[in-house]
Parts: sequence; structure tokens; C-alpha cells
Amino acid sequence: MVVVLGFLVGFLYAQHGALPEAPPIPANNPQTAEKIELGKMLYFDPRLSSDGTISCNSCHNVMNGGSDNRATSAGVNAHRGGRNAPTVFNSAFLSVQFWDGRAKSLEEQAKGPITNPIEMGIKTHAVAVDRIKKIPGYVKAFKKVFKGKNAVNIDNLAKAIASYERTLITPNSPFDKFIKGDKSAISPEAQKGYQTFNSVGCVTCHSGSNFAGPSLPEGTGFYMKFPTIAGTKYDKKYKFTQDKGRFDVTKKQADMYMFRVPTLRNIALTAPYFHNGSVETLSEAVRVMGKTQLNKDLSENQVSGIVKFLGTLTGDIPAQTLPTLPPTPNKSVVDLK
Amino acid sequence: MVVVLGFLVGFLYAQHGALPEAPPIPANNPQTAEKIELGKMLYFDPRLSSDGTISCNSCHNVMNGGSDNRATSAGVNAHRGGRNAPTVFNSAFLSVQFWDGRAKSLEEQAKGPITNPIEMGIKTHAVAVDRIKKIPGYVKAFKKVFKGKNAVNIDNLAKAIASYERTLITPNSPFDKFIKGDKSAISPEAQKGYQTFNSVGCVTCHSGSNFAGPSLPEGTGFYMKFPTIAGTKYDKKYKFTQDKGRFDVTKKQADMYMFRVPTLRNIALTAPYFHNGSVETLSEAVRVMGKTQLNKDLSENQVSGIVKFLGTLTGDIPAQTLPTLPPTPNKSVVDLK
Repeated sequence: MVVVLGFLVGFLYAQHGALPEAPPIPANNPQTAEKIELGKMLYFDPRLSSDGTISCNSCHNVMNGGSDNRATSAGVNAHRGGRNAPTVFNSAFLSVQFWDGRAKSLEEQAKGPITNPIEMGIKTHAVAVDRIKKIPGYVKAFKKVFKGKNAVNIDNLAKAIASYERTLITPNSPFDKFIKGDKSAISPEAQKGYQTFNSVGCVTCHSGSNFAGPSLPEGTGFYMKFPTIAGTKYDKKYKFTQDKGRFDVTKKQADMYMFRVPTLRNIALTAPYFHNGSVETLSEAVRVMGKTQLNKDLSENQVSGIVKFLGTLTGDIPAQTLPTLPPTPNKSVVDLK
Repeated sequence: MVVVLGFLVGFLYAQHGALPEAPPIPANNPQTAEKIELGKMLYFDPRLSSDGTISCNSCHNVMNGGSDNRATSAGVNAHRGGRNAPTVFNSAFLSVQFWDGRAKSLEEQAKGPITNPIEMGIKTHAVAVDRIKKIPGYVKAFKKVFKGKNAVNIDNLAKAIASYERTLITPNSPFDKFIKGDKSAISPEAQKGYQTFNSVGCVTCHSGSNFAGPSLPEGTGFYMKFPTIAGTKYDKKYKFTQDKGRFDVTKKQADMYMFRVPTLRNIALTAPYFHNGSVETLSEAVRVMGKTQLNKDLSENQVSGIVKFLGTLTGDIPAQTLPTLPPTPNKSVVDLK
């Protein structure tokens, strides 16, 4: 039994490699320096929202953990989203995007918020593209990157943004140093917490180097039911089951309450927690997960150990220059009323 | 008469020196690298707004001409401001801040929007300071920069932001090269437009290297009545006189419709125009100014020449790295509802 357990623990440990320096790159969207730079400008450009107030970075703030520290994000005209903004960091390692996995790639994801009426609120992709066409600096950059007469189009816009997002990787966390062999890189408490994380079963879903499940082909999501254990006190308190998760996409009963398993990388930076952002602290999030997913009442000692371990998953935020957006010529292109 | 005019034109030309590389630095707030870096983090930090959605950079976007290309800015909960956001670039050369000059310094200005209910919407400066105190990275940075037990306070916060803003200078515009002697730095049309700018009288107010009037001691504003010529068709069309300008600050009749003369540096980047952002294009803005300030119907040729000249006032936007904001520990500090 000890041998089996030892083997099992060894196997689970092995699942948590250091974060790779680079994510998978799709064959139809190779990385180039110019494309990444264009994508970065677009990522930071509030002109991709109806009234010029919201950029990708507004909710997925790369200065601030890749998210916005809000329960749900604020879109144009103070609309509030229904779900917590996932961090953009290391999203390039995920095989589907959004909490419900409804986008198969970063390219597909990037198009969504632009025309979502409660996010960036532009009426149609055609309107967004028309705006970009009014900005000579963008037209020039698109033509340089994508060639051809029809270079400025929504697919290329999404490709550029996705290329930039594939640079938003956070390697060299204390945990990564630890797992590579530097046993002093994380504290004994964090190591104990890591053991608890594995032994109580968190690792069942949060496996892999991105702590978001196994690496799967693009478009194949790794989902789990949340909450798995129905009817705990947390359900009621945090209203988890008001959101049916992937069911709302597929309408299949099997997808009821199914959500993509989120990465735990940089989790200490991205409070509040869960799909509805209803849980304010990381320690409470751990407590909730123990109960709703594993049917375990974790001790405060276990909770604090796991929280310490999770804190070691904060990696190096990539250093980058601030983009200068191509100027609007002569008059504003956003809705001024 | 020709001699006198020649002398006068020479005098006016001389008023438009190249933009200095650095602005005046107040004795009580010397620049240090660490203070500038702290100020930059604060400038980009949306946690300085009630709901975590608005930073200084939201409306004074240093990626985008130092402004937001909106008529009036969007604050928390989709509130709309009453005036057009002035560019932050080169504001360090101005001797008063805000359209109505109600702040005598960048330090004083920086405090305003944080507690303005329609801008960043934090209830009091004490609440803002309490938030900063909850973020260990900030506490450490404040103590390093300002020393002492009480290092985290609103005055120091404003000092840090002002220090960062004093680095936001845009030298080396084509006009600057021209005025330093490189006559080929701007086109013949722009040169002609510059002559028109001076000869029709724009220079009367838009003098000085910042094209915002003479250099005056901190706290002494350079104001002009807008519109000076009452009752033009533009008054009605653009509702200029709905805003009483500095009168609302001083309640003195002499300040009725008085506004600080804005800089023309980078004016091509900051549409729409005027205190209420009601004029969409730079050419229309020039047309309006000719009529309302100089009682002149400028020809389309004159307008287009002046617009070409104004385009030469776009300088080098300072290259900078993206800050990484100090993380919120454990739970979000912003209003989540």
C-alpha cells in the first residue's frame, strides 16, 4: 500500500512540471515580432469599444495579474459582466477559452468581447474593422504583417491579439524553481501545503504545468462540474449554481454546471475567485473547493498550507514597453454621446 | 510700418522656442527615479477608483496622445464628466491645472479626480490612503521614497504622481527642429500656416514654447475669455457658453467664460476639441477660434495651412516600460458591487 501510494504521489508530482517558456503556436498563426507588436497595440486600444473606454487590458490587466480584481468586470456604460475575468497570463496554454470553453482558441476568444453589448459594445465586427481602417497607422501595420489588399479584417485582428497574448507567459515562479530541484525555493510550509494539495485531491483536476489539467488539443476542453457536491452551505452562500456553466452553450444535461478547470498560476494576484467572483479571499476559495469538490472539511492548517503553496505559483510578469497607439487622424473614431 | 510689422513678427516668432527637455521642478518635490516609478504605478492603478475601473491613465492615456479622444470622459459607473480631458503631456509646463485653473500645481490637480464622484469616485482621500496601506508593495515603496512613519498619505501620493507626470514631455517635434534652424523639417504649407497662425493673431494667446501663453509662476494662470466674440453661430451650435469657466471657481464677474489657454502641443492627437469636446475636427476648431476669438472668417486655405502647421507640434511620445502594479494581498481592495 505504501509502495502504491508512493508511486501514486510520485506520479502526481511528475504532473506539475515547470511552466514552459513558450506556449503551443498554431500553424496558421506563426509568431512574428511585428504581429506581436500590432497585437499589443490592439490589446491596449480602447477604440475597440463603442465609446472608447474599454480595451482588452481594462479587464485583463497585464499590469495587475492579468485580471481586474473585480467580481465581474465593468463594460461600456457601466454594464457588469456575469462572470469573473480570467487572467490572460498563461491562457495560451489552455486548449479552450472562457469559463464555459465556448471559444476553441485565443483567436476565437479575442473576437467575442468586442461585440458583446455588455463588454466592449461595438455593434458588429464590420464596425470595428471600419474604425481600424480609419486609423492610418493600423492600416499600415496590418498590411505589413498580413499582406494583401484585405489585410484589415476581423480574423487578422484576432490573430494579432492572440499572438501578443502568447507572449504573456509567467515563468520562474518559486514553485518552478522548486520543481526543477531547488528545494529551498519555497518554504517548508509551502512544501507541506503542496503535499496536502496533492494528497487531498486538488491535483486530480489542477494537474499539468499550468495547474489547469492535462494538455489537450486546441478546442478540447478540460471541464469539471462545479460544485461537484451539491447542497453544501457554500452553494447557497455564494450562489454558485445560478450559473449553469457549459450547459448554456451546449444545452446538454451532461454539461450542467460544467466549467473549464482554471489555471492556478498567479492565483494569489487574481482575487476575488470563482466564475462569479463571489469569494473574496484565497483561503476561503480553498475551503470552498475542499468541500464542494472533494467533500472534505479542510483544517485551517491545511487551508493555510495550501494558500502558502499557491502563493509560490506567482511567476515573473513579462517586462514590456508601453505601446504608443497609432493616432486617430483629425477626428475621434469612437461614439462620443 | 513694414519695419514695425517685421519687428513684431520677429518678436512673435521668437516666442515659440523649442520645447525644453525638462519642465520646472518645484523645490518641495524634487525628482528621484524611485519617486517617478512609484508615481507611474499610481498613475496606472485603477484601484484609485471606487470600483477599480478607472486610473489616471484611463482619461489621460499616455499611449494615446495623453487624453482619451472623447468629448468628455467616462468615470466610474458610466458617469460623464462636464469637460474634455486635457492631455497630460507637457502639462508640467502649465502654471495652473484644469480648464478653469482651480489647481495651482500638478500635485494639487492629482488629488481632485480621486474623490470626484463622477470621476474616480472614492469617498474621501482617507479611504484612498487606507486602500494603499492595504497593499504592501505600495507601503514599502512610499516608505523608501518619502521616509518616516506617516509616509503613506495623500500629499505624498500626489507628489509621486506629479513627479511621474513631469517626465511626460514630448520634445523633438518637426516644429522644434524647424525653429532650431532646420527649415526642411516642416513642409512649405506648414510654414505658411505658421505665418498665418502668427499674423492673424492666434499667437496672442498661444505663445511660448508650449503654445499656451507666457511662462508664469506656479499658481498664476494665463486665462482668456472663450468665446471672446459673443453671439457667433458657433456659440449656439457648440453650446460653448453653457460652461461659465473660471467664474464657477471664483464667482467673480471678471472670470465669466474665462478658461486657461490650453497647450497646442500634440493637438492633432487629441480630438475632439474645446472645454466641452463639442468640436470634432481640428479644422473646425481652427475655424471656430478664428471667429470667436479674432472675429475673422478664415479662408479654407488659411484653415488648412494652420492645421498643417499644428500637425508639426506632435513630438516624441516618451518611451517607457509598462509598470507592474504591487499585488493586492489575499483579497480585492475595490468596491465589488
